[in-house]
Amino acid sequence: MGRLSSQRHFRYCVDVKSGRHFLQIPGPTNVPDRVLRAIAQPTIDHRGPAFAALGRDVLDGLKRVFQTSGAVVIYPSSGTGGWEAALVNTLSPGDTVLMAETGHFAALWRDVAVRLGLRVEFLPGDWRHGVDPEAVAEQLAADRDHAIKAVAIVHNETSTGVTSRVPEIRRRIDAAGHPALLLVDTISGLGTADYRHDEWGVDVAVSGSQKGLMLPPGLGFNAISDKAIAASKTARLPRAYWDWAPLVKDQTSGGAFPYTPATNLLYGLREALAMLLEQGLPAVFARHCRHAEATRRAVRAWGLELLCLNPDEYSSSVTAVLMPDGHDADAFRKIVLDRFDMSLGTGLGKVKGRALRIGHLGDFNDLMLAGTLSGVEMGLAASGVPFTRGGVTAALEYLAK
Amino acid sequence: MGRLSSQRHFRYCVDVKSGRHFLQIPGPTNVPDRVLRAIAQPTIDHRGPAFAALGRDVLDGLKRVFQTSGAVVIYPSSGTGGWEAALVNTLSPGDTVLMAETGHFAALWRDVAVRLGLRVEFLPGDWRHGVDPEAVAEQLAADRDHAIKAVAIVHNETSTGVTSRVPEIRRRIDAAGHPALLLVDTISGLGTADYRHDEWGVDVAVSGSQKGLMLPPGLGFNAISDKAIAASKTARLPRAYWDWAPLVKDQTSGGAFPYTPATNLLYGLREALAMLLEQGLPAVFARHCRHAEATRRAVRAWGLELLCLNPDEYSSSVTAVLMPDGHDADAFRKIVLDRFDMSLGTGLGKVKGRALRIGHLGDFNDLMLAGTLSGVEMGLAASGVPFTRGGVTAALEYLAK
Amino acid sequence: MGRLSSQRHFRYCVDVKSGRHFLQIPGPTNVPDRVLRAIAQPTIDHRGPAFAALGRDVLDGLKRVFQTSGAVVIYPSSGTGGWEAALVNTLSPGDTVLMAETGHFAALWRDVAVRLGLRVEFLPGDWRHGVDPEAVAEQLAADRDHAIKAVAIVHNETSTGVTSRVPEIRRRIDAAGHPALLLVDTISGLGTADYRHDEWGVDVAVSGSQKGLMLPPGLGFNAISDKAIAASKTARLPRAYWDWAPLVKDQTSGGAFPYTPATNLLYGLREALAMLLEQGLPAVFARHCRHAEATRRAVRAWGLELLCLNPDEYSSSVTAVLMPDGHDADAFRKIVLDRFDMSLGTGLGKVKGRALRIGHLGDFNDLMLAGTLSGVEMGLAASGVPFTRGGVTAALEYLAK
Amino acid sequence: MGRLSSQRHFRYCVDVKSGRHFLQIPGPTNVPDRVLRAIAQPTIDHRGPAFAALGRDVLDGLKRVFQTSGAVVIYPSSGTGGWEAALVNTLSPGDTVLMAETGHFAALWRDVAVRLGLRVEFLPGDWRHGVDPEAVAEQLAADRDHAIKAVAIVHNETSTGVTSRVPEIRRRIDAAGHPALLLVDTISGLGTADYRHDEWGVDVAVSGSQKGLMLPPGLGFNAISDKAIAASKTARLPRAYWDWAPLVKDQTSGGAFPYTPATNLLYGLREALAMLLEQGLPAVFARHCRHAEATRRAVRAWGLELLCLNPDEYSSSVTAVLMPDGHDADAFRKIVLDRFDMSLGTGLGKVKGRALRIGHLGDFNDLMLAGTLSGVEMGLAASGVPFTRGGVTAALEYLAK
Repeated sequence: MGRLSSQRHFRYCVDVKSGRHFLQIPGPTNVPDRVLRAIAQPTIDHRGPAFAALGRDVLDGLKRVFQTSGAVVIYPSSGTGGWEAALVNTLSPGDTVLMAETGHFAALWRDVAVRLGLRVEFLPGDWRHGVDPEAVAEQLAADRDHAIKAVAIVHNETSTGVTSRVPEIRRRIDAAGHPALLLVDTISGLGTADYRHDEWGVDVAVSGSQKGLMLPPGLGFNAISDKAIAASKTARLPRAYWDWAPLVKDQTSGGAFPYTPATNLLYGLREALAMLLEQGLPAVFARHCRHAEATRRAVRAWGLELLCLNPDEYSSSVTAVLMPDGHDADAFRKIVLDRFDMSLGTGLGKVKGRALRIGHLGDFNDLMLAGTLSGVEMGLAASGVPFTRGGVTAALEYLAK
Repeated sequence: MGRLSSQRHFRYCVDVKSGRHFLQIPGPTNVPDRVLRAIAQPTIDHRGPAFAALGRDVLDGLKRVFQTSGAVVIYPSSGTGGWEAALVNTLSPGDTVLMAETGHFAALWRDVAVRLGLRVEFLPGDWRHGVDPEAVAEQLAADRDHAIKAVAIVHNETSTGVTSRVPEIRRRIDAAGHPALLLVDTISGLGTADYRHDEWGVDVAVSGSQKGLMLPPGLGFNAISDKAIAASKTARLPRAYWDWAPLVKDQTSGGAFPYTPATNLLYGLREALAMLLEQGLPAVFARHCRHAEATRRAVRAWGLELLCLNPDEYSSSVTAVLMPDGHDADAFRKIVLDRFDMSLGTGLGKVKGRALRIGHLGDFNDLMLAGTLSGVEMGLAASGVPFTRGGVTAALEYLAK
Repeated sequence: MGRLSSQRHFRYCVDVKSGRHFLQIPGPTNVPDRVLRAIAQPTIDHRGPAFAALGRDVLDGLKRVFQTSGAVVIYPSSGTGGWEAALVNTLSPGDTVLMAETGHFAALWRDVAVRLGLRVEFLPGDWRHGVDPEAVAEQLAADRDHAIKAVAIVHNETSTGVTSRVPEIRRRIDAAGHPALLLVDTISGLGTADYRHDEWGVDVAVSGSQKGLMLPPGLGFNAISDKAIAASKTARLPRAYWDWAPLVKDQTSGGAFPYTPATNLLYGLREALAMLLEQGLPAVFARHCRHAEATRRAVRAWGLELLCLNPDEYSSSVTAVLMPDGHDADAFRKIVLDRFDMSLGTGLGKVKGRALRIGHLGDFNDLMLAGTLSGVEMGLAASGVPFTRGGVTAALEYLAK
Repeated sequence: MGRLSSQRHFRYCVDVKSGRHFLQIPGPTNVPDRVLRAIAQPTIDHRGPAFAALGRDVLDGLKRVFQTSGAVVIYPSSGTGGWEAALVNTLSPGDTVLMAETGHFAALWRDVAVRLGLRVEFLPGDWRHGVDPEAVAEQLAADRDHAIKAVAIVHNETSTGVTSRVPEIRRRIDAAGHPALLLVDTISGLGTADYRHDEWGVDVAVSGSQKGLMLPPGLGFNAISDKAIAASKTARLPRAYWDWAPLVKDQTSGGAFPYTPATNLLYGLREALAMLLEQGLPAVFARHCRHAEATRRAVRAWGLELLCLNPDEYSSSVTAVLMPDGHDADAFRKIVLDRFDMSLGTGLGKVKGRALRIGHLGDFNDLMLAGTLSGVEMGLAASGVPFTRGGVTAALEYLAK
């Protein structure tokens, strides 16, 4: 008997799940244990004093994360519920909205607007660039009688890993002397990349809980400028659930909610906001940038192509990668899931099957990223996709500096 | 030294919180530990195979609890979001809805309908009775050209502890040969009292997570008849977030959701449904009935008055009690909260300050009820409300049988 | 159809568990959610800096609860492991220990001493009184050559609900000019009744996690006087696991442990200590006294007999009640468990079948006590034990004052 | 403004903790969420029927993991408490035990034996090999009058990453016709490498909760042969807490415990055993072997030296690595902890400062290992230790096959 019995079992190397799943879709993200424990606290009376303190805490914290001194409202809804809220509170039937096709979620938001009875000018796009500020400027210049009531864009396109330069858009609106409201979807931007609601002059921001805020899905947010509040007084799209008025009124009078709020998710939100603010937003954004850069270095080392073409528009929360022709992204994703217990993001809409998305946002660190990129590299090897080894090494060299 | 040192401290009998809070509002209810632990599981990919199984489980379980073989949809929303969904999917601008003023929530639902551009016939009520089937019959008989497109009522009025006899309403609609849809709010009815969607001929039921389903708030539900599905094809109220179509389509094709679902609340829902079905719905309803009857016996023994006047319409989930003239219900509730760490329901709307509500629903048992009624009895003594002792004893005698 | 369908189900009143179990044994006690969540935190490196802070926190907090400035040691063990630690660190083979038969746990501690090779003088007792200080004084006076090396007594006899007056014993030892060490089991005393290690002159205290400290079982404690430390230098009973020396050395140098500590229970201990100290020990003790007095009033109103005969020796954490002749306490307990989902303490040793024990300690409040006493009262009715109604009412009257 | 604002923050790349800590000491190991949630269940009556079922489940499961049909006992203790239990139950004062210096824990066990009054023959060792079967054979052959009552060895030396070939030792004892008992510490072996209590003829096995069993620390185990049970009847070392007799008696009569058991850790144990048995022990061992082999390939690629010299004795749970001369292992570990939030094992005893230990055991998977090795590789770069890049790549190539 020359070998340890434990060595005898090499042949049983079957795939049985053990250890933590790597949830590397671009949201929902890995929810920190600390947030999960917070969510598991017993539900309380939403009309009692303990809830009032909770309500104030989460609204105060959200304002700091949105970088606004204006109103913030919280809905029990998906993040996309916030899209509908942004529109129905500010616009009237038949109003025109200028939107831009930056990806799948921009297209879905357009669909919402159309369903609600709005007219949409949809700037075409190739899903590889952010909103073109010049194209916006042209549209606004041509809109001499101000039919366009709002410009609605996506800050960080979760489907493509491409960001749009929000302050540039604001500058074009201002330069045109156009009164349109600026509505911004920052669902996967908030808490992962700098977003400055007041400084950038955004009128309504839309966000959700399950991305940079490190929560499970179930909460939608709007941050609202005074100009948008004013617009809501005359806007005539029918609204009830999404109406800002009682929410804004109640929050100024102490944190109560006009409906039964999603108490346990708010527990988690309080904890997640505390974590973000303990770390400091600049550190949070810097971490996301580092991880995005490390990821891109790995992608380049593998010889694969980034979907995003403009380095000024790289997302710091998600990197979309094009698969070589003849290789299906979803087949690759299935191999990675089955063999390495990691979920990667599927290509959506126009890039279905052609792109995969690596989420590197939320409660994340260097070694989790190393594991993530290792899973991609091993998956490439296992699935027969042509690539060059060394992506992980390239990332580690960058991260170790 | 004649006394034990531990006896010396009687004088320090200050009020410091210890032990479990008694959450006896009529919802959110006491969430079982088992459900809280389920909610604290790590969030997963909502487009992966594990989620598909979760989605199927919760939809299957919900159908059993609604007692329907039709469609059920789940929204990340408050329960009241389901009100809006029921209306926008079935009705068109200017349609007439017949509603009945059974309490605060009936009035709020009416407000939603009006805001959405519907015309509401609102049968008056005294908040102490359920919907009068004869009054409904009269309205329908008078509506010869079928302007009324829907009858919308509340099964269990959480604000009053009065139920409405849903099958009686259905019978009157049928007897009149009227094509109106029957919409029913069973937010605090579902999982606490028998609710038979198919057998009763309800077209759209509205419910939420935080009552008999023993979850935190954050999920809204609709159960939908085929007739309602058919109506949704032609209904013209604008809708996007609440649109049934993609939800119904996706659920038949395997449990996926058209938006990011509230995964962790769905974990809790799966666990809560399992608990209800393990116990068996008849046992669940019987338990609620017993606790409601024990509560009413306590109230009568104290010499206080029930808000609900018709024994056929007693709620099994909540009992509203009128305070004697000159005694404020909210002052009483504050004493109970401060001294005995129990939350009771406030009087809402027209009975603000005059009624208090005792919730005895959800994850509850005899000893928790005994503690609850003891808190009310001690609170009555402590707050100077005139009453007769013996309510707890009366309840115990009933429960011990 | 005259009745609501929900009323039809009265006949199904089967016993299906719902709601929270009432854990009213005198330990383990109801662990607060807050402590359970603390215990569920991820385990960390016990040799790292985060653990060092944890170790310091729990040792500092324990000292405050023991009311000592001396050493405290923590074992991964049951509370009774602390019995063995107290003996092996201070005594040598053949040494005499003076003990007193106050109940089941005193008898078990005696057995441990005998097994370890000690000689035990065991003062007889009737299980209805604490240690008789005069009897101790007589033994010590007769022990002219100081063969007795330790007096070992139980502060709060969990099996009988009788306390012993520790300071009185100390006074007799001092009055006799006897050098014996004073060892005290305060397993169910600590955190429920005043215990003053330094002021009372105790040499070694023994305690555990699962009583007044509101934790699950799994930790044993010793609080140690300088005199006991000195005795440990020459004591010759063999010891390894229980040896104080490395524990005392490590704690003065910063909180590390010579073995792998029970990290997650220590998380819970930190949280539980914080809760006790937030409330303030005097308030904690006062709460226990109130609940014990309310319980005794209920017992008297039922016409039942307390096991403890001396009012100066009533326990504030547990009340033992004698069943009327011909009625088995365990049969009664089974009915209460099956029908009302409450665990009561069994009679142990000499009072097996004759006594039941009501635990009213730890994380507890007035309404939980009301539920507990209601369960006993309903159980008495359900099991045919002769009693007078009104126990719960008597308790409520006392508590409402 | 050419750059996205999110890019501006690269300069803030400070180290702020985010994401999960990598706990890669060789125990405590990463406790699965599922186990943590199990531990957070409310504590129950340890004398009630629910506990009896729990007790049976954990004893049955442990027997399957120890691969024994004999008795297993569970202590609330550290794993090393099981060392003391193994000795005091089988030996008498002055008995001789043959032990072998395979590492730090072997030396500590020796110390325990000496403290308890046993005579120890300690075979010398270089900490880089397991127990030499020939050396054992020689000692036994020389022991003609059978003074040696037990041979006590460590299966998997956690301090060195070296295993001992237990069946080989048994064979030598049998070949010598020697009656000595075989005692085996498999604290970090159980659940990570094949351990066959009955087949290998071990008399007493010692284990603990915090390694392959994936629990927090706090439980110690003994698996006991009939021969050891027989020995315990005449063994005369004093024992009380560790006495097998009441534990063995109670477990055959249905799962009760003679002391208050560590209920919540037992909840976790039930869950962890279920996980191991769901995966299947062969798959569990194969996974550990794969990860150990991948780790060794990384170490070799870095040009570093393994502490273990004999490939037949490689541990599958921990790999100890020698640092190049002039480089302190603890300084390296501190850099890894501070920069990459990973805990590695320190060198203990004779290899303090010279060796570091990488734990790759318990609830673990390929991507967690990839993250772990990445942390080591980046740490080597960051700390100026001479090494060759490519360790991670070598591991990935092996794992991807």
